[in-house]
Amino acid sequence: MVVDNFLRRAHHLQRGTDSLMPITPLADRIAAWRQLAGREIQSEVVDICDYPRLRGIIESFAPDTIIHYGEIPSAPYSMISRDHAWETQRNNVEGTLNVLFAMHEVAPNAHLVKLGTMGEYGTPNIDIEEGYIDIEHNGRTDRLPFPKLPGSFYHLSKVHDSHNLHFACRIWGLRATDLNQGVVYGIHTDETELDDRLLTRFDYDELFGTALNRFCVQSVIGHPITVYGNGSQTRGFLNIRDTLQCIELASRNPANQGEMRVFNQFTETFSVMQLATEVCDAANALGYNARIEHCDNPRVELEDHYYNPTHTGLIELGLKPRLLSDELIETMLHTVERFKDRVSLRAIDPATTWR
Amino acid sequence: MVVDNFLRRAHHLQRGTDSLMPITPLADRIAAWRQLAGREIQSEVVDICDYPRLRGIIESFAPDTIIHYGEIPSAPYSMISRDHAWETQRNNVEGTLNVLFAMHEVAPNAHLVKLGTMGEYGTPNIDIEEGYIDIEHNGRTDRLPFPKLPGSFYHLSKVHDSHNLHFACRIWGLRATDLNQGVVYGIHTDETELDDRLLTRFDYDELFGTALNRFCVQSVIGHPITVYGNGSQTRGFLNIRDTLQCIELASRNPANQGEMRVFNQFTETFSVMQLATEVCDAANALGYNARIEHCDNPRVELEDHYYNPTHTGLIELGLKPRLLSDELIETMLHTVERFKDRVSLRAIDPATTWR
Repeated sequence: MVVDNFLRRAHHLQRGTDSLMPITPLADRIAAWRQLAGREIQSEVVDICDYPRLRGIIESFAPDTIIHYGEIPSAPYSMISRDHAWETQRNNVEGTLNVLFAMHEVAPNAHLVKLGTMGEYGTPNIDIEEGYIDIEHNGRTDRLPFPKLPGSFYHLSKVHDSHNLHFACRIWGLRATDLNQGVVYGIHTDETELDDRLLTRFDYDELFGTALNRFCVQSVIGHPITVYGNGSQTRGFLNIRDTLQCIELASRNPANQGEMRVFNQFTETFSVMQLATEVCDAANALGYNARIEHCDNPRVELEDHYYNPTHTGLIELGLKPRLLSDELIETMLHTVERFKDRVSLRAIDPATTWR
Repeated sequence: MVVDNFLRRAHHLQRGTDSLMPITPLADRIAAWRQLAGREIQSEVVDICDYPRLRGIIESFAPDTIIHYGEIPSAPYSMISRDHAWETQRNNVEGTLNVLFAMHEVAPNAHLVKLGTMGEYGTPNIDIEEGYIDIEHNGRTDRLPFPKLPGSFYHLSKVHDSHNLHFACRIWGLRATDLNQGVVYGIHTDETELDDRLLTRFDYDELFGTALNRFCVQSVIGHPITVYGNGSQTRGFLNIRDTLQCIELASRNPANQGEMRVFNQFTETFSVMQLATEVCDAANALGYNARIEHCDNPRVELEDHYYNPTHTGLIELGLKPRLLSDELIETMLHTVERFKDRVSLRAIDPATTWR
């Protein structure tokens, strides 16, 4: 069952932007899947911030697993204004709180798989562990939540979620897996390759687009590759196919009752400059005229920093990473080429600053 | 200037409860202070969640210091239902976010003195530091926010605030002092002793009342002293007079621009059982027939735990603690006696459980 209120579509509508590939209506996607896989997906167009309706759906559907993707996912969007900051925190924190209360009241044995972000940790000067850290202090020890240094009001909303989630597991005995996801890149999954009606979202605009995806679009349309600052900012990345693998692995191997299990969901770390260079080279090899341009960093963040996050939990569950390759970038460039007439130049340059 | 929307009065009205001593209307309190001190206090009846109005007030008043007491302060209230949990988190997080945005936009040099709570830390098995902890991990070190284990949706709201506040100081260069306050006890301050119109709130009900205050009321009206569980839960406590001293010290010694300074604002730690015993003994010495009753703990919390929080920052600024004494408890019992006819027996027993 899918529960969606199409909030991302609404945000794009408001800003006059859109996914690179068109996203068909949910009803058509469900019809395509019925046709191709012979499976029926139920759907409800509901805002999960509407608690009575969410609770009713969870009570009647009685899920074994709840995969919670229903959040506003953009750091720049959350930094536009007070209203955008609060819209993001309200929507994300209230929605997750509602899921937790509904589980407590009507589905206490369900397993929640919740999307967090690696951005909750920020860039501390020590190795980042998966959710918790053993601290020795003045001769005593405890295993405590890893300290958080989020870098935007959006990332903060995920930190708030994590604390609420941890509490609900500790107090009510719920079980949850918090997937602190890195930056996702890629266009296709096994499913999207079956039928264009199943194409998934590929955002390239300054608010919802992510580094590698944006760089591919920029290279194809002849826009300079926009690197913020010196580009030595380093983050964890993963292929969109691996995100699905991770969700499946987490769902098939649920957390224990009372446990908030945390995985860092990425497969490799890259600096922004490394990614820009790889895309630039691959594009030029295909005959595009790509070049890198450093722009003033619109964000307030450390550009030169230590970064060594652990990510062994999902590997131990069986994750087989599909690492970044020239071939993947070439495939992405080909797909972007196919849809390049849909690109809005207006949406490319960063317009939202942290200051 | 005072900005208030009388939310606590509204909550008491809704529940049919009230402060032990009557709280006069704000206009009368301001008139009393004008008469006694010759000082004029401006006031605005505004919900700080109304951003345009809050911003306008801060812009025109141009404060040097903003003392932010405007939050729902009750752990049990936040645990009544989904609606109470979200009301608490929404009100507290949105209000504080609004203060931060207003400071960023129209008062970037003001100093924010924000009320946090010792409950943000919970009861970890290591010494609790003041806001930050130096962590050595795999041969590297960093000073990071102290990990949080809050024990209710209310305490979580303060954790969310602390993260938003820290971000605003880091990114925008705001300056703030987060006062992680312990449990406040006591009735009188120098000001309340001047005139009954200046009497301050003294809650004794299960939602808004705190341990020592509740025990005094219970002893005077002949209700058993309600100890939750075995009573070995230990917390930091301070006299209401010391809370005012702390606010004044923090205001007169502001944090630096870009700094979120954190103080643990309490003067002594006691177990609940120690407090119950002290009140019971003092009450019986005055001729009351007090006795202690252990009830099922309505909260989910560790009863036997390590607890050793640091609290040196405010002492270094000059705090002269007024420690708990038999004399103080006797004075409290006398004041409760004066107002005991106002006590509602219905409001005493714990009715809200964490489960």
